Amino acid sequence: MKPIAESTVRRLSLYLRFLEEFEAQGQLTISSGELAVSRGTTSAQVRKDLSFFGSFGKRGLGYDVRDLIGSIRQILGLHRTWSVVIIGAGKIGAALAQYRGFATRGFHVVGIYDKDPARIGTKLGEITVRSDLEIERDIERLRPQIAVLCVPGEVAQAVVDRVTDAGITAVLNFAPAQVQVPNGVTMRAVNMATELEILAFGLSHPEELAS
Amino acid sequence: MKPIAESTVRRLSLYLRFLEEFEAQGQLTISSGELAVSRGTTSAQVRKDLSFFGSFGKRGLGYDVRDLIGSIRQILGLHRTWSVVIIGAGKIGAALAQYRGFATRGFHVVGIYDKDPARIGTKLGEITVRSDLEIERDIERLRPQIAVLCVPGEVAQAVVDRVTDAGITAVLNFAPAQVQVPNGVTMRAVNMATELEILAFGLSHPEELAS
Repeated sequence: MKPIAESTVRRLSLYLRFLEEFEAQGQLTISSGELAVSRGTTSAQVRKDLSFFGSFGKRGLGYDVRDLIGSIRQILGLHRTWSVVIIGAGKIGAALAQYRGFATRGFHVVGIYDKDPARIGTKLGEITVRSDLEIERDIERLRPQIAVLCVPGEVAQAVVDRVTDAGITAVLNFAPAQVQVPNGVTMRAVNMATELEILAFGLSHPEELAS
Repeated sequence: MKPIAESTVRRLSLYLRFLEEFEAQGQLTISSGELAVSRGTTSAQVRKDLSFFGSFGKRGLGYDVRDLIGSIRQILGLHRTWSVVIIGAGKIGAALAQYRGFATRGFHVVGIYDKDPARIGTKLGEITVRSDLEIERDIERLRPQIAVLCVPGEVAQAVVDRVTDAGITAVLNFAPAQVQVPNGVTMRAVNMATELEILAFGLSHPEELAS
């Protein structure tokens, strides 16, 4: 299978969101055209996205909603559960620790860590904040795949180095800093400053930002 | 000026972040190669990105760091301030209301709204949560450009309709739902589920995700 662009994976995730809504409403089949409209893309793009992974759907009948949900979940790796540690129990870390969307999508938060003694031992929902000194031992013991970084920018790289050395293979970075990960580690960044700046660009240059 | 891809704007934002770090360290000039290394791209890409907006830098001497920061800030629309309202004072909304990065980048939070009587009137940092019934009147009075949505998914579209009808022209959507905005309104979404699913794809298909 050839490398898949992140934009394709992103669209698959959005198709999945839409298909789940349709399933909840009792719809059994859907056309590539309907999926395209929902996502503001074309039916040719939808068929191309799905063709990366083999053939689905029947000409003229569209896709079976439940089958397609199953296929996309399998493709995205959502047919199994993943374990997550959150590093940093500040406002964002605490909010994420209690984010129900993790569990409903099969992402289990198995630990949250901080180095502030005032936070260590406090409860966030069902989970208790542990000392950052426990990070390596817990990763070796619990074998989480994903680390969510909610630490200050200036320590982000050091924390990434620690968790990837200990065996983490995917990082979701909320820290306001660019970090490097070793080969073989998947990284995503949610950068508020960048999102705001893209908005400011759109406001400053109406009609110029390609959609 | 032809339409500019979002990926270009995103890279400009990241160059800016890096340039600001370099300025803080006292560096006066920088080559496209140094900028490229910092962002994991090529010097040709850097020169192409900057060429969209006219010519900067001198061959062999590189870019003047302070000039380039000024130019990118101007391009991105960061040479002025923007006013922001936050809709929803739950965990994410409350965390964002107290996010210092807004103000330091020229984004002033002028209001935060909720419909829960238990939240209305509470203080979040320097700002007091107001009733969602005040949204339209406040937008007309304070003329904010940006609304940050931190509401449940099922009400997200209705809230977007209300704020854009009232005059908001840029939306940053944290709600776990796809929303449509009228023509002329800029929209960005931060979708935790999508970020997690892209990570899960990367974990399930190592080496396959194109970077």
